[in-house]
Amino acid sequence: MKDRFIETRKKSEDLCKPLLVEDYSLLPSEFVSPPKWHLAHTNWFWEEFILTKYLKGYTVYDPHFSYLFNSYYNAVGNRVLRADRGLMTRPSVEEVYRYRQHVSEAMETLLSIKFDKKLLELVEIGINHEQQHQELFLYDIKYIFGNQPTFPFYGSSYGLTEQDIKREFIKIPEGIYTVGHQGEGFSFDNELGVHKVHLSDFEISSQLVTNGEFIGFIENGGYNNFEFWHDEGWHWVNSNKIDAPLYWHKVGGEWFKYDLDGLQKVNFSEPINHISFYEAFAFAEFKAMRLPTEFEWEIASDQFSWGQLWEWTHSAYLPYPNFNKAPDAIGEYNGKFMINTMVLRGASVATPAGHSRKTYRNFFHPNMRWQYCGIRLVKKPDAISTNN
Amino acid sequence: MKDRFIETRKKSEDLCKPLLVEDYSLLPSEFVSPPKWHLAHTNWFWEEFILTKYLKGYTVYDPHFSYLFNSYYNAVGNRVLRADRGLMTRPSVEEVYRYRQHVSEAMETLLSIKFDKKLLELVEIGINHEQQHQELFLYDIKYIFGNQPTFPFYGSSYGLTEQDIKREFIKIPEGIYTVGHQGEGFSFDNELGVHKVHLSDFEISSQLVTNGEFIGFIENGGYNNFEFWHDEGWHWVNSNKIDAPLYWHKVGGEWFKYDLDGLQKVNFSEPINHISFYEAFAFAEFKAMRLPTEFEWEIASDQFSWGQLWEWTHSAYLPYPNFNKAPDAIGEYNGKFMINTMVLRGASVATPAGHSRKTYRNFFHPNMRWQYCGIRLVKKPDAISTNN
Amino acid sequence: MKDRFIETRKKSEDLCKPLLVEDYSLLPSEFVSPPKWHLAHTNWFWEEFILTKYLKGYTVYDPHFSYLFNSYYNAVGNRVLRADRGLMTRPSVEEVYRYRQHVSEAMETLLSIKFDKKLLELVEIGINHEQQHQELFLYDIKYIFGNQPTFPFYGSSYGLTEQDIKREFIKIPEGIYTVGHQGEGFSFDNELGVHKVHLSDFEISSQLVTNGEFIGFIENGGYNNFEFWHDEGWHWVNSNKIDAPLYWHKVGGEWFKYDLDGLQKVNFSEPINHISFYEAFAFAEFKAMRLPTEFEWEIASDQFSWGQLWEWTHSAYLPYPNFNKAPDAIGEYNGKFMINTMVLRGASVATPAGHSRKTYRNFFHPNMRWQYCGIRLVKKPDAISTNN
Amino acid sequence: MKDRFIETRKKSEDLCKPLLVEDYSLLPSEFVSPPKWHLAHTNWFWEEFILTKYLKGYTVYDPHFSYLFNSYYNAVGNRVLRADRGLMTRPSVEEVYRYRQHVSEAMETLLSIKFDKKLLELVEIGINHEQQHQELFLYDIKYIFGNQPTFPFYGSSYGLTEQDIKREFIKIPEGIYTVGHQGEGFSFDNELGVHKVHLSDFEISSQLVTNGEFIGFIENGGYNNFEFWHDEGWHWVNSNKIDAPLYWHKVGGEWFKYDLDGLQKVNFSEPINHISFYEAFAFAEFKAMRLPTEFEWEIASDQFSWGQLWEWTHSAYLPYPNFNKAPDAIGEYNGKFMINTMVLRGASVATPAGHSRKTYRNFFHPNMRWQYCGIRLVKKPDAISTNN
Repeated sequence: MKDRFIETRKKSEDLCKPLLVEDYSLLPSEFVSPPKWHLAHTNWFWEEFILTKYLKGYTVYDPHFSYLFNSYYNAVGNRVLRADRGLMTRPSVEEVYRYRQHVSEAMETLLSIKFDKKLLELVEIGINHEQQHQELFLYDIKYIFGNQPTFPFYGSSYGLTEQDIKREFIKIPEGIYTVGHQGEGFSFDNELGVHKVHLSDFEISSQLVTNGEFIGFIENGGYNNFEFWHDEGWHWVNSNKIDAPLYWHKVGGEWFKYDLDGLQKVNFSEPINHISFYEAFAFAEFKAMRLPTEFEWEIASDQFSWGQLWEWTHSAYLPYPNFNKAPDAIGEYNGKFMINTMVLRGASVATPAGHSRKTYRNFFHPNMRWQYCGIRLVKKPDAISTNN
Repeated sequence: MKDRFIETRKKSEDLCKPLLVEDYSLLPSEFVSPPKWHLAHTNWFWEEFILTKYLKGYTVYDPHFSYLFNSYYNAVGNRVLRADRGLMTRPSVEEVYRYRQHVSEAMETLLSIKFDKKLLELVEIGINHEQQHQELFLYDIKYIFGNQPTFPFYGSSYGLTEQDIKREFIKIPEGIYTVGHQGEGFSFDNELGVHKVHLSDFEISSQLVTNGEFIGFIENGGYNNFEFWHDEGWHWVNSNKIDAPLYWHKVGGEWFKYDLDGLQKVNFSEPINHISFYEAFAFAEFKAMRLPTEFEWEIASDQFSWGQLWEWTHSAYLPYPNFNKAPDAIGEYNGKFMINTMVLRGASVATPAGHSRKTYRNFFHPNMRWQYCGIRLVKKPDAISTNN
Repeated sequence: MKDRFIETRKKSEDLCKPLLVEDYSLLPSEFVSPPKWHLAHTNWFWEEFILTKYLKGYTVYDPHFSYLFNSYYNAVGNRVLRADRGLMTRPSVEEVYRYRQHVSEAMETLLSIKFDKKLLELVEIGINHEQQHQELFLYDIKYIFGNQPTFPFYGSSYGLTEQDIKREFIKIPEGIYTVGHQGEGFSFDNELGVHKVHLSDFEISSQLVTNGEFIGFIENGGYNNFEFWHDEGWHWVNSNKIDAPLYWHKVGGEWFKYDLDGLQKVNFSEPINHISFYEAFAFAEFKAMRLPTEFEWEIASDQFSWGQLWEWTHSAYLPYPNFNKAPDAIGEYNGKFMINTMVLRGASVATPAGHSRKTYRNFFHPNMRWQYCGIRLVKKPDAISTNN
Repeated sequence: MKDRFIETRKKSEDLCKPLLVEDYSLLPSEFVSPPKWHLAHTNWFWEEFILTKYLKGYTVYDPHFSYLFNSYYNAVGNRVLRADRGLMTRPSVEEVYRYRQHVSEAMETLLSIKFDKKLLELVEIGINHEQQHQELFLYDIKYIFGNQPTFPFYGSSYGLTEQDIKREFIKIPEGIYTVGHQGEGFSFDNELGVHKVHLSDFEISSQLVTNGEFIGFIENGGYNNFEFWHDEGWHWVNSNKIDAPLYWHKVGGEWFKYDLDGLQKVNFSEPINHISFYEAFAFAEFKAMRLPTEFEWEIASDQFSWGQLWEWTHSAYLPYPNFNKAPDAIGEYNGKFMINTMVLRGASVATPAGHSRKTYRNFFHPNMRWQYCGIRLVKKPDAISTNN
């Protein structure tokens, strides 16, 4: 456990290596957090939920930091409004690294002496929490860089794999299936509560939708035809003047996209990324197909390869039948977001190694698209009958 | 069919009898439509979707009205922005009644001569559409009157029945159940597509939550304790300064509510009305219970009495597995609202007779509460085991 | 005085004769008041400031009305928010007329028996106040009708006179001039305080700018060239997508405008109406001229004809050097608006007879243009020297 | 001139010495610019308006920078929206200093070889422009630091001088006075155009209003009494919940304020700082006095000491009678802001040495108060007569 702790902490800091000090504090939009805040907040989590409770004689690095770096745990007291996170030039980046050093050393001490079960469970949550922020950090730095006129280079390790031209549809028979996390390993509270679901038979694509296919949608007027859209999606498209995926730019008649390695020509064979649920749904309508439910995805996922991009499902993020949120502040982790959000399944190239499993329930509002996310299609019932 | 047509038309106009001309055109909020608009829009629906297509030689009453009184059918052309519906003082109320007379007479002629199946299906939709607006009219006139300092009297026929003090919990066993509309009669496209679901065993209340019980929530600080709320619900409560159900006023230490018969003291035994999904959920959390899913409700509904108030379920409004929206404009009726909305089941005292069935899927955004709606509770799993 | 009172009251009601009941309650924008509100508010003014203080035994018609129909007199207690004025369908139009009857009769009684100076001064203010609302009523009903797709006809008595093609520039010599209201007659507090000003010599047009000239501005790209605009004006043009005066519509390549007699082709020789200060300023820049100050206007006004349209001046609305606002609520009448507003001088065809004088200081925010207002130009200094 | 150039450039950079790299890029509010932007924008000004035109063979440092660091000169092409100025983490602070070095060297070369009059005039403008940004920089860094929970220390050189307890009122006789810039030295276009004004006699305070006096206003309910406020000011107070000057905090019953040397107890004898025009006006009303006009201030200023704080006048910022804005982009400097702004006269402790004169017309919107600004009172006419 101590090794995994050390490794996780190192990874968070390694991700920041391409940054200048200037890049740490920016807040370009309310849903984005500055890199400095990610570093400090994940650190605060260890201090608040573990060190102050389990390490005798631990002294908090700075009592103000609880106020500054709490994210949304109402139970822990007041916190800086989300929109103000980018307003803090102090503490400095250097001091935030000192703060991390302070907490890491104390945690390593603790993990050398204590092994009770409750503590280890919390450490597991802490590691998973910090891993989640590693992924969010990548979304955020992409947004920070991708909205600057100079399109800075971050790194080249987050490319996507080209999809096979030959798409197959995998048939899953009708039946009663068991879903939810069952193994020994770690999972979040929202995926616990194994239960049965009835699924009709369905056919699901072995491949993700590609950029080339999505350009077909654009060029056939997909963004201008209300028939494909939810009423709210149509409003979203028009009031935000959306006409392409996030980070796409048309230059001299050709599509380019900003990626972490700079502005690049769009590769038609790579999977489409950075589309909202509204766009994923509209694309499926355009193709006369549909998105899978999260349970269809979970059952079928053994038969296709996944992990490039989170995949929008047509399931609202709601509690499983026997969901019980954890007591006290940790219980605020997931349940309180179970409204007006949609489930994504899978993982992405930005997901830290060891942080994915087929029962994992990621979720975002249907208009969000700065996260790494793509589309996998399922045939509509009539299509099944006619195509077979 | 002709008789049902005539009866439906008369009901729409009877509902307006308590109004002054002044009351017909007001638009106090974006989600409310003025009475004049309800009368004209339901009328336009017959003209646009039936008369112009099925009645030879029919002349449209006024070609501008299609622009004025279309609601959200993008396929039919431009329309007045929702927020501008209250800006039209002309056509006058008198002219709208003449417009209705014109359409009613033409429809009666048509229904005396034509009987093909497609037409009768459309007439059925037209009747159901006008009935829906009759219910919306009552929500809207309550909102229009309930937000004026003089609290006008509308009528006394919409009171609620007191609930039994002895609440029972009805046990439903685990199993595979069939849901969705199966009968011969009319249904909307969103409830078609009979399919199977697996339900775990559960226990559901025979009664609705009462005003008295909800006052318990208020007095125990329910509106001030973030633990009971979704993150968005908590934000909604605080930014709108919500501290009671809609239409409630505390006067001299006692709770009053505006109802269609004026400002009245709150009756503790009547079911709680006009609460948002956020409030329904928070109340259930406060009680350590939960709301039923729409399928639990549908299966259990044979064993309790319903119809006083629409009942919030904990199901997002999403398409059934084999949902297919109708072609052309009629297809915009339901499917395009299947995002960020929650299902309500049952019916209310404002629902026209003959317009309810247990498979009916009503839906609203989770923050809406001007509709007639209440709460029915289900035990949480641990509560089931311990209480048995 | 009693005769003038009766005549003023009658005029307010005569102005409403072309209205349907439906037209009385609409509030299409925050700066517009519904006709019913004008009738009731002017009435309340008599009741609040005169009858309750001077007529023994007077009983207020309805004590709630003070809350409903106060406009902005903070000293008199709470009032309905401006944006809510359109939300009151009750009291009915009929009742508002009864309310006026009640007050008129009491005032006539009072004016038959009382003649003290303070009372007569207040009656004079009441008459002038009601006259101001008669003019505002015309602005408002034009806005209410002009924003409906049916462009209703109100009346034909508010047309403008064509301007002479031969424009002259009147020369006014440098000197010390006396400005401000000096006569015996009524004036508002903001025009009192006669004082001296020094004016350089200037040349002012004998005519108002015409529609034809303004079309020249439009066709030469005036709305697209930032050079002519204030920074705020440029922002106003772009964020509101302004490309023509209010009520103008381009139909089939020709300019039409809504006027109280319906939609009409624009007459090139009539003075331009319904432009904001921003537009008036930009037009003057385009012509390499300028607007007069309010004192230039006041001194020169004896030498040209005015009264068709209020004329924007390049003077901010600020207190005269020895301004003293009246004590208590009447003192709120003018002084509190002396910030971010610009002075207009003259009068318009919508101004009631007897309500104009050359010292009258009208004022509006620089973005407002639903009032009747036009442009008179003054030569720039270099133009004076070169043209002479 | 070259010496003054070098000195001005050095001062801009010296002002940044107390900053960390983190402090350079923050944009806490739309009216505040990040320090990095000030450094780069003033630099761009030299490059755009002088070097590219006067220095043969000059190569622009980076052609993108014109887009990034233009402020509001529409004539020079597109520019980064004001609200996006804080979104640029690149170019880095280090690079901005290299950019300044590049420009400074080129300017020094130019100033060693060229001396034509037009060039020297532009250099004078460039120096004054950079000085203005030095003062704005201090406002902005105070705002950036003053809104962080840690209240960082910047420096101690910007304190204010205590005011004499014995305030005198200086009498100025009625007369025709000449105002506007007349000397040889530099001035902006908005203060040119010497002209005559007539002033009535008035009495103006020899001292600025103190913190102690302003606390009297607060403690007598000044922020809660609409009588003292403009209608817009009253709205501003209530919608922004204003109850003290900017940067003031009540801690344990005592008033503290953030200043560039940290959080300090309020000194009753120092002049009040950081109040809006609305507050200055309300305070004057509370004292039954008034603010001076800009011309009264200019004429009387020889007889009192000024320069601690800019002083709000009761004059709107409007063009002088014979104002002519400069041709091309430089002409956008002042004239386009002459609407909805009020004039401040004098200078402040944040004003660079040599950048003040009694004809200088500073201006801000009446709600702004992050600039250094105070209040000087004038007696009202009746007070003059009765007190004498």
